[in-house]
Amino acid sequence: MNRAWITLLTDFGWQDTFVGQMKGVIAGINPDATVIDLTHDIAPQDIRQAARTLSDACPAFPTGTIHVIVVDPGVGSQRRALAAEIDGHRFVCPDNGLLTPLLRRATVFRCVTLNQPRWWRTTVSGTFHGRDVFAPVAAAWSLGLDLLQFGSPLDQPVCLPDAPGPRCETGPMGLGIHGTVIDLDHFGNLITDLRAEHLVTLPTVGSIQLEARPVTSGLCHCYAERQPGAPVALINSSGWLEIAVVNGNAAQTLHAGRGSRVTVFARKLT
Amino acid sequence: MNRAWITLLTDFGWQDTFVGQMKGVIAGINPDATVIDLTHDIAPQDIRQAARTLSDACPAFPTGTIHVIVVDPGVGSQRRALAAEIDGHRFVCPDNGLLTPLLRRATVFRCVTLNQPRWWRTTVSGTFHGRDVFAPVAAAWSLGLDLLQFGSPLDQPVCLPDAPGPRCETGPMGLGIHGTVIDLDHFGNLITDLRAEHLVTLPTVGSIQLEARPVTSGLCHCYAERQPGAPVALINSSGWLEIAVVNGNAAQTLHAGRGSRVTVFARKLT
Amino acid sequence: MNRAWITLLTDFGWQDTFVGQMKGVIAGINPDATVIDLTHDIAPQDIRQAARTLSDACPAFPTGTIHVIVVDPGVGSQRRALAAEIDGHRFVCPDNGLLTPLLRRATVFRCVTLNQPRWWRTTVSGTFHGRDVFAPVAAAWSLGLDLLQFGSPLDQPVCLPDAPGPRCETGPMGLGIHGTVIDLDHFGNLITDLRAEHLVTLPTVGSIQLEARPVTSGLCHCYAERQPGAPVALINSSGWLEIAVVNGNAAQTLHAGRGSRVTVFARKLT
Repeated sequence: MNRAWITLLTDFGWQDTFVGQMKGVIAGINPDATVIDLTHDIAPQDIRQAARTLSDACPAFPTGTIHVIVVDPGVGSQRRALAAEIDGHRFVCPDNGLLTPLLRRATVFRCVTLNQPRWWRTTVSGTFHGRDVFAPVAAAWSLGLDLLQFGSPLDQPVCLPDAPGPRCETGPMGLGIHGTVIDLDHFGNLITDLRAEHLVTLPTVGSIQLEARPVTSGLCHCYAERQPGAPVALINSSGWLEIAVVNGNAAQTLHAGRGSRVTVFARKLT
Repeated sequence: MNRAWITLLTDFGWQDTFVGQMKGVIAGINPDATVIDLTHDIAPQDIRQAARTLSDACPAFPTGTIHVIVVDPGVGSQRRALAAEIDGHRFVCPDNGLLTPLLRRATVFRCVTLNQPRWWRTTVSGTFHGRDVFAPVAAAWSLGLDLLQFGSPLDQPVCLPDAPGPRCETGPMGLGIHGTVIDLDHFGNLITDLRAEHLVTLPTVGSIQLEARPVTSGLCHCYAERQPGAPVALINSSGWLEIAVVNGNAAQTLHAGRGSRVTVFARKLT
Repeated sequence: MNRAWITLLTDFGWQDTFVGQMKGVIAGINPDATVIDLTHDIAPQDIRQAARTLSDACPAFPTGTIHVIVVDPGVGSQRRALAAEIDGHRFVCPDNGLLTPLLRRATVFRCVTLNQPRWWRTTVSGTFHGRDVFAPVAAAWSLGLDLLQFGSPLDQPVCLPDAPGPRCETGPMGLGIHGTVIDLDHFGNLITDLRAEHLVTLPTVGSIQLEARPVTSGLCHCYAERQPGAPVALINSSGWLEIAVVNGNAAQTLHAGRGSRVTVFARKLT
């Protein structure tokens, strides 16, 4: 029995059978693989969002899990595809930057460019390598083959350029860290690019502003520390600073979204 | 082999990887567990909707299935969490009323409050006990452990206060039962809080009104008994009185929704 | 161990527990069946869309897979239900035309009408045969029973009337093939009823028009052959002519949708 987990992370949505077809191909190659959907709601072609989403979700999975990521605007072109092992996790995806956050902190790393068509479906379409290349490679890999079966070593996978990132500044309101809302979750919680590691550089967490409007102060441990309807800031379950509204929708209530500026000041404003 | 089923019922939506992460944690503890999504579209924080949805879906599952329910506005606070056995089914969830309908009709019942952190993930976030507490407890339980491994006996889990509920009245139009639309399904069918058991108290099912407007009369066995576009009332597959429009969307066509008043009269209006 | 795959294709959406309940019933009958969602976003009661979607997805699945299709406006009425084997694939569904495209090209075909209630759930509702008839029949079938256990031979399953279909014409702009947009995918790509087989009847693929407006010319192999924002035509991964906008949404950008007329001319317009 070749027990294995294969996760799928795509921008395919749920309405078509793209995801189902990938599962059909996997079933035909390794009947003992369990396929888990990470999500298929990545914004179309948004490689950066997919990369961050993958990096956040990986730690919940057992070592050896194979993560297949298909956000692939270059599908069918000369863009490379890859399979990689990073610190015990395994990945199959186009070589377009999807592994950037994982590669930045990798300690052990092996990677190949997929150039062995004998593992692919016989006919490879120009628009759906998820089904015709990535799914069959992942399924074959889950049977116990070595990474080098699938292609030639690739030393430098594509990495996304660094995003601007948070910056620490002392201004008229004192020391503060400036960041950005990078995502909304299903609840309308605002996920920022500030991490717990950034905030510990402040002596205390005081006022927190969105687009220069104070919305809350201090960090909470959980939503229920404040009253329903109150804005609250906390470190979420993936380590990001999140601004939420208790039992509400922060994006709507606070009129904020992807790209909104966030500042955490060391002192409380009065 | 520790064959087991674990279902997930949450208000997490599908766009994030919350559900996927829970499945990753379960896979790491019991590789033989099969995880089934009940739904993740419970309205945010709507404990009552989740409780009813769970109660309706349970009978389709084999005895011994573990149902994990995460609608948890109090996550990370001092609210208790529980694991319970009710009439052969098993449940893991916050102690906030999610089991109310099941407890009301329970014959055999055992319950513990989750206070044994050795079954949880090493680090427990303040916002995602689905991944850090409920998933690992459910997965460990599916390996064959006894309920008492997970915590201390809990005799009185939280129950939701009774909703107003249907009432029987004789008015100018004769005997009638008054109820409320409590949910819409994907097709726009109106699900009411009236059950087959209520309707048998009427000698016949005559005129059925929504917000005092007559929409149909009599009960049908299936949609196709009336013409496309016609309103129809029937007992749905979970035993609730449902008002539908044949091949149409009742909520839109009849301008009704959650909270709309429904009355079933014994006689036909002429 | 009764390893088997069962796929589900419905118009149930994802918000209710209809799909989860079907999985619960299957789990109770064949614990070794793996259930795969094809999609649940078929437009309500759209048998033709479901038929085409099924026909496109089948080839990705291993022989022997059981496909359960529930788009069933006649549920609970006298409409028949069926189980069928077509060229190595297996199907369970209402007898309302869902298998039409598969039957049109079938070489080996066996079919029964489901009339053996001993395989159904004890109580069969009038509105949810997916749970009460189709899921248990599929699960029992996956245990290795013969098709004839489930009912009496059915020689003539219902077939949908042929859609108008593409037509070839020589007009003022020369030879052209006229077709129709029959579906949109998640990306807003326009899927037409023209197939690669139709286009080879033209000496070359020249100008392509949507509702008499030229949108692109020639066929591409993949999206990335043109610049972001440019319209592109290609044969998609299921063999249909698709009109897309590179990294964009063709339906929105080109103001087209289901029913829009498409013409492929042999010569380029200048």
